[in-house]
Amino acid sequence: MENFSFYAPTYFQFGKDAEYQAGDLVKKFGGTKVLIHYGGGSVIRSGLLDRVKDSLKSAGLDYVELGGVKPNPRSGLVYEGIDLCKKENVDFILAVGGGSTIDSSKAIAAGVVYDGDFWDFYCGKPIEKALPVGTVLTIAAAGSEGSPDSVITKEEGMFKRGASGSAIRPKFSILNPALTQTLPSYQTAAGITDIMAHLYERYLTNSKEVEATDRVIEALMLTMIHEGPRVIADPDNYDARANIMWAGMLAHNNCCGVGRSQDWNSHNIEHELSALYDCAHGAGLAITMPAVFTYCVDHDVMRFAQVAVRVWGCQMDFANPKATALQGITALKNFLSSIGMPVSLKDINAKEEDIPKLVEILCRGNGRNGSISGFVTLNEDDCTNIYKMMF
Amino acid sequence: MENFSFYAPTYFQFGKDAEYQAGDLVKKFGGTKVLIHYGGGSVIRSGLLDRVKDSLKSAGLDYVELGGVKPNPRSGLVYEGIDLCKKENVDFILAVGGGSTIDSSKAIAAGVVYDGDFWDFYCGKPIEKALPVGTVLTIAAAGSEGSPDSVITKEEGMFKRGASGSAIRPKFSILNPALTQTLPSYQTAAGITDIMAHLYERYLTNSKEVEATDRVIEALMLTMIHEGPRVIADPDNYDARANIMWAGMLAHNNCCGVGRSQDWNSHNIEHELSALYDCAHGAGLAITMPAVFTYCVDHDVMRFAQVAVRVWGCQMDFANPKATALQGITALKNFLSSIGMPVSLKDINAKEEDIPKLVEILCRGNGRNGSISGFVTLNEDDCTNIYKMMF
Repeated sequence: MENFSFYAPTYFQFGKDAEYQAGDLVKKFGGTKVLIHYGGGSVIRSGLLDRVKDSLKSAGLDYVELGGVKPNPRSGLVYEGIDLCKKENVDFILAVGGGSTIDSSKAIAAGVVYDGDFWDFYCGKPIEKALPVGTVLTIAAAGSEGSPDSVITKEEGMFKRGASGSAIRPKFSILNPALTQTLPSYQTAAGITDIMAHLYERYLTNSKEVEATDRVIEALMLTMIHEGPRVIADPDNYDARANIMWAGMLAHNNCCGVGRSQDWNSHNIEHELSALYDCAHGAGLAITMPAVFTYCVDHDVMRFAQVAVRVWGCQMDFANPKATALQGITALKNFLSSIGMPVSLKDINAKEEDIPKLVEILCRGNGRNGSISGFVTLNEDDCTNIYKMMF
Repeated sequence: MENFSFYAPTYFQFGKDAEYQAGDLVKKFGGTKVLIHYGGGSVIRSGLLDRVKDSLKSAGLDYVELGGVKPNPRSGLVYEGIDLCKKENVDFILAVGGGSTIDSSKAIAAGVVYDGDFWDFYCGKPIEKALPVGTVLTIAAAGSEGSPDSVITKEEGMFKRGASGSAIRPKFSILNPALTQTLPSYQTAAGITDIMAHLYERYLTNSKEVEATDRVIEALMLTMIHEGPRVIADPDNYDARANIMWAGMLAHNNCCGVGRSQDWNSHNIEHELSALYDCAHGAGLAITMPAVFTYCVDHDVMRFAQVAVRVWGCQMDFANPKATALQGITALKNFLSSIGMPVSLKDINAKEEDIPKLVEILCRGNGRNGSISGFVTLNEDDCTNIYKMMF
């Protein structure tokens, strides 16, 4: 096991009606003037936004609002949010929505207290301070509610890049599983896929002897495999929603990543898909993961065999461990397909002739030098082969 | 799943040589004048105390020290620590040791800023403020390094009772697994048993549909079952020590307890044993758990069968689930025995004629009204039967 530090000081209020505590929690964490940041119509239609506003009013808090966050959130709205916060002397950002809204909120929070262009943080500058952020989560997926990470797409060039820093980790997150019951099944499934990807990206490690972390990841994968199909079959199943929502947070607050190297090649390869085709991140991951894992299986057959046996219930083929390893990857692919995810780039109308462009941005964009590094270092040829495998 | 809040804001520095960061961490969390609190000779003999002092000096911090914490820490030393801190204007308590030292430090931290008798907190008064506490952990066992809990024994009456409050949760904890390599094997095994108990006490729940938490608990049990025997066979196995140390923290920071009722009957029944016979808490738990679980198996056969199958690798007996449930309890008992723990009250020189006294203090002491409540409510007859089963 490798040395590490772990610090996850987000306060979680979990359960039915938890959003009514938004005002008290903002106050508890020092906010006086709030930016409520959100996406499209669903938080309005469902009445959630009004409940949150009422809660802020009851707590005696002043607020302004900024809607319009889109999936794969864009830099333009971040700049708008920063200007609004400065003009209105906002001292707390409350994200009401999913990962995109939270990531956009984190970018605004870092940008407001920074003299330069917030995009600097997405080009590698560490985020050292930010306005405090709180969240009211509406989809179990990105894990941004408990993470120090944010992913934003810059319109010029369609660069989709991440930034990170303890300062943007939410002070509190309100997780009410009932809020996810109205999600379209495709979005629920995309969220489940994103959670599975956060687990796999940490499972695929080159560090040895990190059994505790391996086992916790497997525990959450098993939870998702149990609860995912239940919630697709019965969207109103509160308990299944609840287990998925909590697993989604744990999958990405890095308790599953301690003491070890991590992968993130699938995320990097996918980011170019959702940036170019504007597909759901989870849908892109459903197509990406089986291809990446199959391409990389020989790098550590026993690791893939371990997840196949412990998580997917495969019988170990002691004479041919690679067969077991591949069986586990097939089981993942079948699972994702069974909950309604695409399994081929054709399904999201991608074109083979775009591959050179995808590979160019992936391996050469934003300061990269012809490869991406994770569980396996993948050069341009490798990435080309992987994108081809996805058709 | 039940509604819950979860807040675990301890900063963990984990790995080799982590104790050299003690000074920087105390400063980071606002300390200027430190009480170093510790137990007996081992932290002195190993040089750890000197390394910690050097780290504080390098960070420009002033300190006083108070040694002498014993297993099952007593109120007398807590009063002494409170007086010392007041006299010396201490503003940070640094525990260097195991659970007893950390619990004693937490009691001092709460007592210093309280006008009344600190024992009030151990009679049910909530702890609302305390001096900040940091820890340098030397044994994987109690989980106090990441928990808001403290257990102290009051000399008058030998009452062993717990207190809890976010204010006494450590600000930081330094976890260097190498520091545990010199522990006698009996202490290592007692620590492993305590960790298993923290997991079982949360596993035995009357709440339904908390799969994510079930699975995480099982993950850590599997980790302990894998690593426990390895570390007993090879005390210098750093990686096995590391996995146990991290699992021990996760087992008790309550990430394994969210969304559900918990048990804690085994802990309550054991506390009277270690209070009366001054045995290692873990040794008492090794004797207690199999008896309690066997006595309570009919309350929820399927829960005991689940842990038997998922954790202990028992084959499910579909015609007779209780047989599987009992097989799992036997597997636990065999595991504890295999790492060197006692399995009978005779092994710790307890006497059957003490049972009425044990039951009296357990069920009538400290405001209880003739029973203890957890997974099952146990009255005086039940507790008498359980203590008898342990001989």
